[in-house]
Amino acid sequence: MSRRDLLRMIGVAGGGALMYQAMANLGFAAESTYRRPPPLQGTGKGSVLVLGAGLAGLVAAYELGKAGYKVQVLEYNTRAGGRNWTLRGGDEYTELGGHKQTCQFDKGLYFNPGPWRIPYHHTGVLDYCHQFGVQLESFVQVNHNAYMHSPDYAGGKPMRQRELVADWHGGIAELLAKASGKGALDDMATKEDREILLESLRQFGGLDNQFRYVMGSASSEHRGYAKEPGGGPDGKPGFSKPVGISEILNSRLWKQLGMSSLYEYQTTLMQPVGGMDAIGKAFVRELGPQAITYNSKVTAIAQDDHGVTVTYEDTTRPGQAKQAKADWCVCTIPLSILSQIPIQVSAEKAAAISAVPYMSSAKVGLQFKRRFWETDERIYGGISTTDLPIGMIGYPTHGIGSAKGVLLGAYAFFMEAYEFTALDPATRVAKAVEYGAQLHPQYKKEFENGISVAWHRVPSTLGCFGWWTDEAREKHYANLCSLDGRIVLAGEHASYLPAWQEGAILSSLAAIGQLHRKAVAGGKA
Amino acid sequence: MSRRDLLRMIGVAGGGALMYQAMANLGFAAESTYRRPPPLQGTGKGSVLVLGAGLAGLVAAYELGKAGYKVQVLEYNTRAGGRNWTLRGGDEYTELGGHKQTCQFDKGLYFNPGPWRIPYHHTGVLDYCHQFGVQLESFVQVNHNAYMHSPDYAGGKPMRQRELVADWHGGIAELLAKASGKGALDDMATKEDREILLESLRQFGGLDNQFRYVMGSASSEHRGYAKEPGGGPDGKPGFSKPVGISEILNSRLWKQLGMSSLYEYQTTLMQPVGGMDAIGKAFVRELGPQAITYNSKVTAIAQDDHGVTVTYEDTTRPGQAKQAKADWCVCTIPLSILSQIPIQVSAEKAAAISAVPYMSSAKVGLQFKRRFWETDERIYGGISTTDLPIGMIGYPTHGIGSAKGVLLGAYAFFMEAYEFTALDPATRVAKAVEYGAQLHPQYKKEFENGISVAWHRVPSTLGCFGWWTDEAREKHYANLCSLDGRIVLAGEHASYLPAWQEGAILSSLAAIGQLHRKAVAGGKA
Repeated sequence: MSRRDLLRMIGVAGGGALMYQAMANLGFAAESTYRRPPPLQGTGKGSVLVLGAGLAGLVAAYELGKAGYKVQVLEYNTRAGGRNWTLRGGDEYTELGGHKQTCQFDKGLYFNPGPWRIPYHHTGVLDYCHQFGVQLESFVQVNHNAYMHSPDYAGGKPMRQRELVADWHGGIAELLAKASGKGALDDMATKEDREILLESLRQFGGLDNQFRYVMGSASSEHRGYAKEPGGGPDGKPGFSKPVGISEILNSRLWKQLGMSSLYEYQTTLMQPVGGMDAIGKAFVRELGPQAITYNSKVTAIAQDDHGVTVTYEDTTRPGQAKQAKADWCVCTIPLSILSQIPIQVSAEKAAAISAVPYMSSAKVGLQFKRRFWETDERIYGGISTTDLPIGMIGYPTHGIGSAKGVLLGAYAFFMEAYEFTALDPATRVAKAVEYGAQLHPQYKKEFENGISVAWHRVPSTLGCFGWWTDEAREKHYANLCSLDGRIVLAGEHASYLPAWQEGAILSSLAAIGQLHRKAVAGGKA
Repeated sequence: MSRRDLLRMIGVAGGGALMYQAMANLGFAAESTYRRPPPLQGTGKGSVLVLGAGLAGLVAAYELGKAGYKVQVLEYNTRAGGRNWTLRGGDEYTELGGHKQTCQFDKGLYFNPGPWRIPYHHTGVLDYCHQFGVQLESFVQVNHNAYMHSPDYAGGKPMRQRELVADWHGGIAELLAKASGKGALDDMATKEDREILLESLRQFGGLDNQFRYVMGSASSEHRGYAKEPGGGPDGKPGFSKPVGISEILNSRLWKQLGMSSLYEYQTTLMQPVGGMDAIGKAFVRELGPQAITYNSKVTAIAQDDHGVTVTYEDTTRPGQAKQAKADWCVCTIPLSILSQIPIQVSAEKAAAISAVPYMSSAKVGLQFKRRFWETDERIYGGISTTDLPIGMIGYPTHGIGSAKGVLLGAYAFFMEAYEFTALDPATRVAKAVEYGAQLHPQYKKEFENGISVAWHRVPSTLGCFGWWTDEAREKHYANLCSLDGRIVLAGEHASYLPAWQEGAILSSLAAIGQLHRKAVAGGKA
């Protein structure tokens, strides 16, 4: 599928939240195969050039260095980490096209424009955190008190997630109980099973004793109360009124529930204390100050039977081509960039490099004067979702109760992301405030400043992540991942966990495993 | 219902996990009515005796003091907080019967034997935390990777929560889709609604394109993989095999899922950083060092038209009766104790005081050499549930990745709690290790030390919380909560949020409101 076809498809599909889900599905979104591999067997000899100091490159440099190789890392940016990146007050960022933003956040506040959460089954990431003493804390994804919102439902009045979940569960539980009562399940389940089923549906759906989902204690214990239980003489609760299943179905808000039950968003998610870039920084600390050559723009990658030659430019001194040589090369440059660089590999690998389009996404971080989402709306961490172009609003799990906070004010994909990115950064921030005010009217009064990262305008990636189709994977994945002479590729694009840091780490471990086996076999594996 | 009847009933019912849920339901478990009330209107004159320095007593003392009353607090224990309590290394605790335990935890580790989590809708607790600068962090309750266990299912092999949830959701979604396909819903939903329903069931249940819940990408994206997605040439995932709905139903493990969707256990739950007792300590700090008279055992409470006289004993100098006098009294002594103390109130209130039995519960805290639940089993925070007498195992959300940790090794209710409590504390700890090893074989090798608190052996409460039946509430609740001359009661027992700190706080605010209105009206309200 060509990029043009892909974009057309995206345009037809529309609907950020739904597509985000589709994307998550495509990603196989899953538990890592990482099982704390033993160190590379045998002593490595010779030298390795690692291109890119994102997590894939950092893992390669660290593990190969430990195994005895002489490693040099070339990195385009002035910092390591790649998409593992945190913005804080004073940080500057210039996107493609020249717009430069300076982050205005107060001290202590931060925003992760790239990855922002670590699933419990991403054991590669977690074990490096453990190994390097990167402190982790829980990251709340699902919040029953956050909002589900569509401008097309209820005049744009958001619903609390707990209400939607309860009413949807209650509605289908009642339908199934009724169907069973009419004998519709008689040929699918034994009488005893059907009896247990009813009991379980009552628990699951908050049904009453007649298996109805109606206003009362059972439903309010799931969806919340109209008048909440209290203390003293006036403490008696008042029950809330469920929304009927037909209205729930037609609201389409249930589509926004899909993500939370997927494997990659299940509890417990985690985040490094103080910002995601703690991971990249820990690798840099372990590698030592000389390991990475920053401001290095790779312009050509050549190899012969004896070694690899990489031509690059020091971006602080443009126009002077430099060369680096080594026995081997681990190239972690995103395919969106690599496909534009001459590289001496097989026709199959070259085709694979050109076959993977990159997903676009845009994030906006917004600083507010006070944490109104906590004090006014009792939303502590988690995510509100919306059909608006901002896609979602993310609330920080950290810093509960503190004075100010930074929200993820937009996380747009696909067409929404392209639309967002067509705007200059300041307008993107203003748009995020404008849209967000539909969920939180406090936005306009409390907003202080914001920053926006649109991933296909990030010069070092030109996209958010490699967006594999099943078709492309079938044809090109093996070719992309194979060791080609003395060059091997790594990065989230060379994994079944696209967009995740874990994919970068696992692909890197797989890549250096191949490289090392061939190296210790005298270049003949 | 007499206590004997109640205990008989409990005995018949059995099944800790199930009963715990029933109990949660009884509790109305719900969002607080607290809305940051304005300070008490008008200036308070005169004096108030507050009996008990648990959260209800502390709130009363703090708010009445702010309003201008002269307040004296009498507390039985040598510390304030009541059930708001945290145990750390070096702490000593002597239970009824004389068994004394000294907590052996390493520095930095702690265990909350009483309340251990704060729902997002317990705004009374949260706002005092905010007001007093008590730092909060998220508390993970539901963990998709934690275990659901029954010794009677699969030979005692625990199931991951994600597998159980996915297979139960998938199973009922498939049944309902099939029932719909057979026309069983035709008279309950329009054709359009049924079409949307099918679409939503596919998302919810992880069904395939034919609306079947079968081994494949859709089900594995919910329940997890047999071979997890990885990086490099061997990155392709292998799907896991779902368990059929009949087996899921008959496993009865689904009963253990009920709690997590109830209002009071929904995300986001929180905990104070460093231990729950940070809340009680913050109140004590605000009240100042002279406010509370510790070691005061109340033996009689009398009143006349002019004031209240409380007789008490200094437990460090037994045998000498002391008296304290004030214009008013807020009595927060648990009914389990108060029902044994002569108190000059109406016959109706006296009947109410005697009408509420107390729930028993027992907790065990266990320190382990290493956090094997994280490194070996990828369980970060949350709760595993079991039909064993320990009821559950709770994993700390805080301190992820640190060296050691303290688990909640047992949280038993009802009969299990009585059985546990019949043992001496050391044997209780040993039993918790023995049972827990059925879920975590590492227990026996990694266990270091433990401590046990059985709430009906705690001298100052003789129970965990007031266990209201609907019947008892109908008859006695109003009488319990009314201002009786110059005496008013407060505590979780005087609320619709039994067992929760929020119930104590709300009941206290309601109680002092009544007292204050009467006081400013010259004793005539």
